Amino acid sequence: MTALNEKPTTAELTDDEIFAAHEGGKLGIGVTASLADSRALSIAYSPGVARVSQAIAGDPSLAARYTWAHRLVAVVSDGTAVLGLGDIGASASLPVMEGKAALFKTFGGLDSIPLVLDTTDVDEIVETLVRLRPSFGAVNLEDVSAPRCFELEKRLIEALDVPVMHDDQHGTAVVTLAALRGANTVLDKRIADQRIVISGAGAAGVACANILLAAGAGEVVLVDSRGIVHEGRDGLNPVKAELAARTNGSGLRGGIAEALRGADVFVGVSSSTVGEELIASMADDAVVFALSNPDPEVHPEVAARHAAVVATGRSDFPNQINNVLAFPGIFRGALDAGATRITEGMKLAAAGAIAAVASEDLAADRIVPSALDPRVGPEVAAAVALAARQDGVA
Amino acid sequence: MTALNEKPTTAELTDDEIFAAHEGGKLGIGVTASLADSRALSIAYSPGVARVSQAIAGDPSLAARYTWAHRLVAVVSDGTAVLGLGDIGASASLPVMEGKAALFKTFGGLDSIPLVLDTTDVDEIVETLVRLRPSFGAVNLEDVSAPRCFELEKRLIEALDVPVMHDDQHGTAVVTLAALRGANTVLDKRIADQRIVISGAGAAGVACANILLAAGAGEVVLVDSRGIVHEGRDGLNPVKAELAARTNGSGLRGGIAEALRGADVFVGVSSSTVGEELIASMADDAVVFALSNPDPEVHPEVAARHAAVVATGRSDFPNQINNVLAFPGIFRGALDAGATRITEGMKLAAAGAIAAVASEDLAADRIVPSALDPRVGPEVAAAVALAARQDGVA
Repeated sequence: MTALNEKPTTAELTDDEIFAAHEGGKLGIGVTASLADSRALSIAYSPGVARVSQAIAGDPSLAARYTWAHRLVAVVSDGTAVLGLGDIGASASLPVMEGKAALFKTFGGLDSIPLVLDTTDVDEIVETLVRLRPSFGAVNLEDVSAPRCFELEKRLIEALDVPVMHDDQHGTAVVTLAALRGANTVLDKRIADQRIVISGAGAAGVACANILLAAGAGEVVLVDSRGIVHEGRDGLNPVKAELAARTNGSGLRGGIAEALRGADVFVGVSSSTVGEELIASMADDAVVFALSNPDPEVHPEVAARHAAVVATGRSDFPNQINNVLAFPGIFRGALDAGATRITEGMKLAAAGAIAAVASEDLAADRIVPSALDPRVGPEVAAAVALAARQDGVA
Repeated sequence: MTALNEKPTTAELTDDEIFAAHEGGKLGIGVTASLADSRALSIAYSPGVARVSQAIAGDPSLAARYTWAHRLVAVVSDGTAVLGLGDIGASASLPVMEGKAALFKTFGGLDSIPLVLDTTDVDEIVETLVRLRPSFGAVNLEDVSAPRCFELEKRLIEALDVPVMHDDQHGTAVVTLAALRGANTVLDKRIADQRIVISGAGAAGVACANILLAAGAGEVVLVDSRGIVHEGRDGLNPVKAELAARTNGSGLRGGIAEALRGADVFVGVSSSTVGEELIASMADDAVVFALSNPDPEVHPEVAARHAAVVATGRSDFPNQINNVLAFPGIFRGALDAGATRITEGMKLAAAGAIAAVASEDLAADRIVPSALDPRVGPEVAAAVALAARQDGVA
């Protein structure tokens, strides 16, 4: 059903054009105050600025109104899980963080600054951000390796009174849920009736499992490099052990082949590959989200021989599951509402808003909006802000 | 000689216009890469950006070319000595740091980000910036109280391989030296023949003493709240003790009155006041720099009854000694040259460049260029970059 013959939106990228586009970095500081003459200088800087500083010293809540920090997102990474490249370090992660900041601005209208850290110690990262707390208004964690990312996010949420979200977890999960909603509408299916197999139990896999369960999935089966995650399996880390208790209700054992046989939905976030015969073994009208980048777990043309709806993480195939549909609007909505944290309800609301935009022009090859659709950011922000108030965090 | 009847450049500022100008803060993030279409998105972010990250992982020196960090100034404060307001905390200092960042952009063409810290512990501040090292290319320390600022700057210079400068020390000192050069040219005097009295032995006073000595001052006398700093005085902190050995060669004792009697130059950086009779007691053709803001140590009209050249820190009198003449060009020159630190030679070169611009239109009421003079930043940057190469730090 997917329109695989349509012209790719991006022809092969060349190194020349890539490197030219990144020359000097991708961000710059803009000045929103006038410095045009001596009077303007006296207002924006000394002596005028002293009045503003004095006012904030007297009433700290005024910082939200008279500084940029309240609405500034710190894009934080330690460079341990950068795209598919692994632990390449803070400095090498910076082009990704700059890109993220560019996306925040373009799709969420939010200012953000990359803060990349030359430490991978969770305690030290938390401590650093606590010390810098007056400098920003939210934290987008990025490209932090699992399972450290789970503890780091949890610790930061506890330590800071601002929205904190690890996008590789929740951004992916939100868009995956939105995409599944779209696919299910096209196919006239209900998530409560579906067995969903998630290949990969890292940052994205764990968050997908959580949000799909929260959205009422019939059954979720998590598969990692050692096979199906189940209760009693040796050597599960605490995060997987907790999930083992809430997934795989059928008690499946084995690997990805056993998990996929008769399954309704495949979500691949693992960088592994899945053979055609496994996709063929899924239920009728299967849904396949092969999200690994740049190489999907199964080529979408191959998957389409057996599945009713196919999505990838790539922009050159239909149905791109791209975090940019979620994170700019999630942070924008949280900051618009003055939320102190990002709740499960806010994430579900974000997925609902993305699915609502898609529903206006839904088809098997249009289950999510385009990553460039300008309607998405504002719709997600509005839904998230509302959910923040409903959840009592704003 | 100063033209005190000329129309002030800034009429009284009102709270309304000040607060309106600071609403929402004074900075924003600009995106220099295109995100206009799907192809541009694939270049600036995933998957294209992976090539850039991979290249930096293989050759860390490429970060200088393909990220913004290499030329990004961190404007760092702990909020302990904000303008004349004292220890008002990190959050209340942020409007000043945003203003500083705006000046960096406008007068130096440099991007910078405010990083304000919720700790005043020198070890913790150093540790925090070391961890964030891959995120920036230089550190402008700002509004850190003395004597902690001396240790903090020294420790950061040792710990980081990038230019670090506490502007309240060296920016003020550089412009003060430039202004004295201008005054001396007008008066046909030589610094080697002058006794210079500095009132205030905090960040600015200590740095002024050091640069004036480095520039060949005949004698420097430092006066703090307890009187003239001299060898053997009880309770001197290490910084003052070190300076006591190199200043006050005449062995003066007493307070500001004793110091000023017959002195050639007064530099006030103390927030104290100096009576007219003390200015009257100075040598003929005295030079008075009353730099405290917003209230100069002596009103410039009063000082002008006795002094040949009068300067203040205010924009509404002639001869404004304003750090903005120095710091944008100093950091720009250091970063242009790829300097790993800021040397005494670079600071002296900056003062020379400012004085050179002033020399083109020199008069008793024009001993320094206007703070808005667009020639200054580039001239300072060029001189500083040259000095960096001469000093072997670039």
